[in-house]
Amino acid sequence: MDLKHYLQTNRALVDTALQSLLPAVGTLPVRLHQAIHHSLMAGGKRLRPILVLACAEAVGGMREPLLPFACGLECLHTYSLIHDDLPAMDNDDLRRGRPTCHKQFDEATAILAGDALLTVAFELASRPIVGITAETILHVVRQLAIDAGFSGMVGGQMMDLLAENRQVDLEELRSIHRMKTGALIRFACESGARLGGGSGEQVEALKNYGAAIGLAFQITDDLLDVTGDSRIMGKATGKDHDNAKSTYPSVMGLPSARTLAEEQIQLALDHLKNFASSADPLRALARYIIERTH
Amino acid sequence: MDLKHYLQTNRALVDTALQSLLPAVGTLPVRLHQAIHHSLMAGGKRLRPILVLACAEAVGGMREPLLPFACGLECLHTYSLIHDDLPAMDNDDLRRGRPTCHKQFDEATAILAGDALLTVAFELASRPIVGITAETILHVVRQLAIDAGFSGMVGGQMMDLLAENRQVDLEELRSIHRMKTGALIRFACESGARLGGGSGEQVEALKNYGAAIGLAFQITDDLLDVTGDSRIMGKATGKDHDNAKSTYPSVMGLPSARTLAEEQIQLALDHLKNFASSADPLRALARYIIERTH
Repeated sequence: MDLKHYLQTNRALVDTALQSLLPAVGTLPVRLHQAIHHSLMAGGKRLRPILVLACAEAVGGMREPLLPFACGLECLHTYSLIHDDLPAMDNDDLRRGRPTCHKQFDEATAILAGDALLTVAFELASRPIVGITAETILHVVRQLAIDAGFSGMVGGQMMDLLAENRQVDLEELRSIHRMKTGALIRFACESGARLGGGSGEQVEALKNYGAAIGLAFQITDDLLDVTGDSRIMGKATGKDHDNAKSTYPSVMGLPSARTLAEEQIQLALDHLKNFASSADPLRALARYIIERTH
Repeated sequence: MDLKHYLQTNRALVDTALQSLLPAVGTLPVRLHQAIHHSLMAGGKRLRPILVLACAEAVGGMREPLLPFACGLECLHTYSLIHDDLPAMDNDDLRRGRPTCHKQFDEATAILAGDALLTVAFELASRPIVGITAETILHVVRQLAIDAGFSGMVGGQMMDLLAENRQVDLEELRSIHRMKTGALIRFACESGARLGGGSGEQVEALKNYGAAIGLAFQITDDLLDVTGDSRIMGKATGKDHDNAKSTYPSVMGLPSARTLAEEQIQLALDHLKNFASSADPLRALARYIIERTH
């Protein structure tokens, strides 16, 4: 299993699909599409769409027909980055080594680019898929809305903002991140398994896999903010400390945070125990989640 | 046809449904739900959900099962108001006689409340409906995403911002409003007809009805900004002039703008000519659109 090659191939696949699924950068209103393009085509890892494809593959499903759906998740993820970066929120100037959307354009354009990406995520997610019933797609679209909304991503971001400048305990921190970053990663795995035609048991196993790597991903993000190289990361580091934000390292200490991340990866691998070699990309991805440097 | 009674009854129906469909105001994170509640339960006209119900009724369909869907449109409309009111956009302090969301709370909370309302709109729109196929619902959900996104509402708001401080002609103005306000009103009628089980011809007729009243609605909004009473309107008037915004009165003059609105209402009524008395609420609504004082 050559993960580097797998990621490269799949990133290229997602990038090409995004280019063909979204309007060209010159479409009216030009400024809006420039802003969408600026943030969406900025060299993201494409983790969420790749998880959709890899989970479909793991249950023996087709990958290609799920590309629009998978790209929808990347649009939704990108919207959350654009809005989180706004001055009223995390006030970030740099993202993936480039000016954030509101720095490159302006706040109004960034708010609208985020709104448009959130909306188009549902357009892409609700397209018919060959071989999948409309009932299944509708069920998945609704779950996406739940995981992205006040019970998921948006609620988690609000709780994260409300937790600034005060000490939170491990339980609250996990609850925040289960919503803020965990929900969409878990959803990517669950929906990939479901749209790939997995059994109820398989869907459940991959959902649990997603929950575990989601937590490991967030802990690694926090660790990289402390120990990472801002040149490799393409964004400022040490921000959590400067913003007096509670993180896994600040709440548990660096060694315990590393151990918790390791445990989650082991848990994720355990959830894959009944899967054959078709789940090898997911096994490799789990390791990559905590070994990445950006 | 007692429209006043019809509107009152239907507003109460929508208000009750919204209360039961959305989490209570004390749900975690409390601040987010307070903000959502503040903007959503502020005494809106509920025009879009009422159009969904009235169009379903016009084609002989059931109204009750469409309530969650109809409420989704009100959530989506409310999100657009919250984001449009932000300082980076139209910078409004007052809406329906109350402080706008970012004035009552703060910008971050308002952005997130808008994001949550946009997202929950798709959760409500993608719920199963008794007697309607999942294919039809999925089709309608996708159309909602198209009409709300960069080709519709969001794109129209961007074009509106880009048109500030310069003179636009009538064609550009119509194109902006066809997207910004027209798309969702048209969609409300089209989706109500489709989910109500209307024939292809009926759906088309009610879509055209929606397009016509949508334009009349916008012209009336512009007229009220010039001639309306801010105490009745619950928001500042004369803002378009202060913001150097092109409006129907500023582009065509007051009398021509009034005539254009009247023509659109006549057009809307023409589209209802093959409908029986079940479309009487829509006929009355068309007149109300331009006769309203707020």
